[in-house]
Amino acid sequence: MDYTQWVETEFEGLSRSHGLSCTPGAEIEARLSRLRSGMAEMGMDGILFYEKMDRFYFSGTTQDTLLFVPLEEKPLLMVRREEARARLESPLENIVGMRSIKDVPSLIKEHQGRLPGTLGLELDVLPARDYLWFKDLFPKCVFVDASQLIRTLRMIKSSYEIDLIKQAGVIGEMVYEKGRAILQEGMTEIAFAGLLEAAAKALGHEGLLRVRSINYEAYTWHVLSGVTGGIVSQSDSPMGGLGLSPAFPVGASLKPMKAREPILVDFGTCYQGYQADETRMYSIGEMPNKFMDAYRACREIHDRVLDEAKPGADCEEIYIKTVRLAEKLGYKESYLGPPGLQTRFIGHGLGLALNEMPFLAEGHSYPLEEGMIIAVEPKMVFPGEGSVGIENTVVLTQGGNAVLTPASQEIYEV
Amino acid sequence: MDYTQWVETEFEGLSRSHGLSCTPGAEIEARLSRLRSGMAEMGMDGILFYEKMDRFYFSGTTQDTLLFVPLEEKPLLMVRREEARARLESPLENIVGMRSIKDVPSLIKEHQGRLPGTLGLELDVLPARDYLWFKDLFPKCVFVDASQLIRTLRMIKSSYEIDLIKQAGVIGEMVYEKGRAILQEGMTEIAFAGLLEAAAKALGHEGLLRVRSINYEAYTWHVLSGVTGGIVSQSDSPMGGLGLSPAFPVGASLKPMKAREPILVDFGTCYQGYQADETRMYSIGEMPNKFMDAYRACREIHDRVLDEAKPGADCEEIYIKTVRLAEKLGYKESYLGPPGLQTRFIGHGLGLALNEMPFLAEGHSYPLEEGMIIAVEPKMVFPGEGSVGIENTVVLTQGGNAVLTPASQEIYEV
Repeated sequence: MDYTQWVETEFEGLSRSHGLSCTPGAEIEARLSRLRSGMAEMGMDGILFYEKMDRFYFSGTTQDTLLFVPLEEKPLLMVRREEARARLESPLENIVGMRSIKDVPSLIKEHQGRLPGTLGLELDVLPARDYLWFKDLFPKCVFVDASQLIRTLRMIKSSYEIDLIKQAGVIGEMVYEKGRAILQEGMTEIAFAGLLEAAAKALGHEGLLRVRSINYEAYTWHVLSGVTGGIVSQSDSPMGGLGLSPAFPVGASLKPMKAREPILVDFGTCYQGYQADETRMYSIGEMPNKFMDAYRACREIHDRVLDEAKPGADCEEIYIKTVRLAEKLGYKESYLGPPGLQTRFIGHGLGLALNEMPFLAEGHSYPLEEGMIIAVEPKMVFPGEGSVGIENTVVLTQGGNAVLTPASQEIYEV
Repeated sequence: MDYTQWVETEFEGLSRSHGLSCTPGAEIEARLSRLRSGMAEMGMDGILFYEKMDRFYFSGTTQDTLLFVPLEEKPLLMVRREEARARLESPLENIVGMRSIKDVPSLIKEHQGRLPGTLGLELDVLPARDYLWFKDLFPKCVFVDASQLIRTLRMIKSSYEIDLIKQAGVIGEMVYEKGRAILQEGMTEIAFAGLLEAAAKALGHEGLLRVRSINYEAYTWHVLSGVTGGIVSQSDSPMGGLGLSPAFPVGASLKPMKAREPILVDFGTCYQGYQADETRMYSIGEMPNKFMDAYRACREIHDRVLDEAKPGADCEEIYIKTVRLAEKLGYKESYLGPPGLQTRFIGHGLGLALNEMPFLAEGHSYPLEEGMIIAVEPKMVFPGEGSVGIENTVVLTQGGNAVLTPASQEIYEV
């Protein structure tokens, strides 16, 4: 059977009946309209999108493409592989085949009759080699960094996006419940992590947690028990865990889990590209009082953040208030890491990537806005002993916020 | 307890007793020595390593660092987080703390008394923004692209590396065997994929398959059954599958698996950072003859590649011979994808990343060498019906090659 013909006649029904759905055209149109306002303000004639999630955000497809969005004309999606599928996934009108990156200037010229004068590029992620190629391909073009504009636009979520993150949160709730039946004394952290992830995948979790960076990886499942919870690693996180090797020095390890130690389970679920991030505590039998108390303090700090987090509130101020509260509660030496290695944030944005804006963090003095999504994660670290924490993904609403991760906040004791 | 003190006294014992082991100093020394020969030939005074796997390869740690390797002096590892752990993981002598990328020139100057004149950078992956920062930080420096040199060095594996890939292959064998007990009619592709991955993780599989690229992701587990095996997607692979959404349009889907359809299971296992890549066929009851025959043809092509693959043989020629053989066997229209979408390679290198050199591919006319690792993967695609294939990870030995993925090559029929 001819492949393209098969895709055109059969693909849509097959994909709909197995849970795939496309980004609505109106959603893409609204994003492009906000983008164009920003481009006009910054004096860009166009942006050439390279990074996969930016392309998905503005075109609806993650096929192998480059996306050119001019200030006035319609966007041009140039597809390397696979064109028939890109046409079904993207609501954009102008979709053409591309053999190599060298074709880009001529395809743009064909599309709009001229090349852009000032072109935005994602300089935060575009490889230097491609940047230098673009300089050769567009010798008369002035390049400007579009990454801050893009990150600012992606920071405010639409109701369509919020709903997908909410569905990711519902998967998370089911997975934590399933964890009660899976967890057993003597099971290794990584075995538990693998089975939790398998449960999530069966419910539609997409397995990878994307991050906007070549070096920063999201290890899918953090299960840290007792002593491993007290280990710091490369990641900008209060604790990193032991991991499986110096090549993967973060997350679950081959350590067996024991009774009465705190078992911190921090995971992300991803639904239709959108992530929810959360942390809960398990224990086999009752956790010692020290950790119960510290967990109670984490919940108090978490609830205080939720009291404060409303449109107009300053991101950095919220972080600073939590540091003061942690001190008042007696956790100055444990809050967000061991002394000298404490992280300086209590929340981060997320969506298609795990490290989106805003950040409730030192140096991030700007106001919260309606439609922002933040993962709020107070944690306490006790070197040599363990760690506790709670994390929820929260959306900023008109008057305040709403939690999108409905899993029970009590300790999952088995 | 003081964290750094805890790491220095307790970490090594804890990590050794849970399966973590460090890259031997002699291994790093040998890699640096080969690197310096290449640098001397190319006229580089030093290389500044940014990418995580390059830093791991030359320093033994994936902590958050930058690594400077001068032509003559000792390497300098600059650590952002976490320094105590980096000191335990890396055999390098000169390890210093770094607060920000801006400190790099002064740290280098302190280390060797001067800045390099010609500095190698990984232009294939270094973000343009960091490249432009380095231009500001080293205004008198000439930058050259070190990526081809690095990729060429990483292409030839030591016996230490080959042994780790072999252990990854042993995990793979156990996982395919476990799959017999897991696979059931009506189970979704993604549920099966998740349980296979969980089984692998319990055996030490590290979960992520790293790729040297910001956009190219390795979806961990491809389970493609019947019709989904006939779908092409973004990836440079004969078939991509349906996936879970346009955000993840590759790999296992929510389609339930049926009796008598070909179930292609392509996965990578990762052990201590090193990957093995393989593909096997499952079926519930007997597969129809059409697929049995096509699978036999894949095995014949696979075995022919193994006959040809020895040091000195030309990579492109091996690929071309397989195209001719596939034609002779009657699979011109199915080999490596549907007509018009056929991929142009029959094998790819791998190691710390899934896309290492060499490539048995069109346009890759260079000789195989002892110590190279290649995944050989003939596949046949039938749009609307399914696909079959086999894949093994193979090391080039003095006289020929040896398979590192020992799983049975018969169909896993349940």
